[in-house]
Amino acid sequence: MADNVQGLEVGSKAIFSKAVTAADILKFAEVSGDTNALHSDPAYAARTRFKQPIAHGMFGAGIISAALGTRLAPTSVVIYLGQNLQFRAPVMAGDTLTATCTVTKVDTERSRVSLDTVVTKQDGTEVIRGDATVMVEALG
Amino acid sequence: MADNVQGLEVGSKAIFSKAVTAADILKFAEVSGDTNALHSDPAYAARTRFKQPIAHGMFGAGIISAALGTRLAPTSVVIYLGQNLQFRAPVMAGDTLTATCTVTKVDTERSRVSLDTVVTKQDGTEVIRGDATVMVEALG
Repeated sequence: MADNVQGLEVGSKAIFSKAVTAADILKFAEVSGDTNALHSDPAYAARTRFKQPIAHGMFGAGIISAALGTRLAPTSVVIYLGQNLQFRAPVMAGDTLTATCTVTKVDTERSRVSLDTVVTKQDGTEVIRGDATVMVEALG
Repeated sequence: MADNVQGLEVGSKAIFSKAVTAADILKFAEVSGDTNALHSDPAYAARTRFKQPIAHGMFGAGIISAALGTRLAPTSVVIYLGQNLQFRAPVMAGDTLTATCTVTKVDTERSRVSLDTVVTKQDGTEVIRGDATVMVEALG
């Protein structure tokens, strides 16, 4: 059987970083349809606990997707099966996010890989914690 | 104590629908950084089990965010605390997605609401299943 999991083993890491701009947050609102004013309107955001606009939680989750989709096994097909997300701290424009995905389990027979997934800000604050499951297949 | 949960009760629903275009998928790739060719390159996608480009899993999750952020409690501040996602079927450009979020638990004292979250396609296929937790606060 082909080793679809491409040499991935427990402890293998996929890391992706991205600076977050106000334009990115507006674009995420547009593409998702989540136009909640908390993400775009400073006057509205000033009336919330955050005091300023914050990125969508799912924006940070997109950084995990980028780590898995572009860094984990770039020569294979990586198929997202599941993701748990705990949103732990707000993300603002100007922050730089880093998703660190660490392999916790490899099921070679079913070509499935489980990962611990953490997103941090430039100051080390953990903004998302969770875990993911992907299928890793050879390109046909 | 103010009723921050704004009359939400078990069984309350938040529903959001969105048609998915190829341009949306490219925009999601750009904003997330997940530029995996499976989502953009027909020749690459033809060599995978999907045969054609598919949307990112997190794209579908964005529709849940839109339901929670724009439909659940539009006059309150809805803060995303957690989301579990099982990606169950692929989404292609041309599909229309509908996220249906159904309240399963209301904790008035902590202003927390739990929801069952399902995303379906126009033909009823379930593409994402999971559950969410949000905090619902009054605007200051």
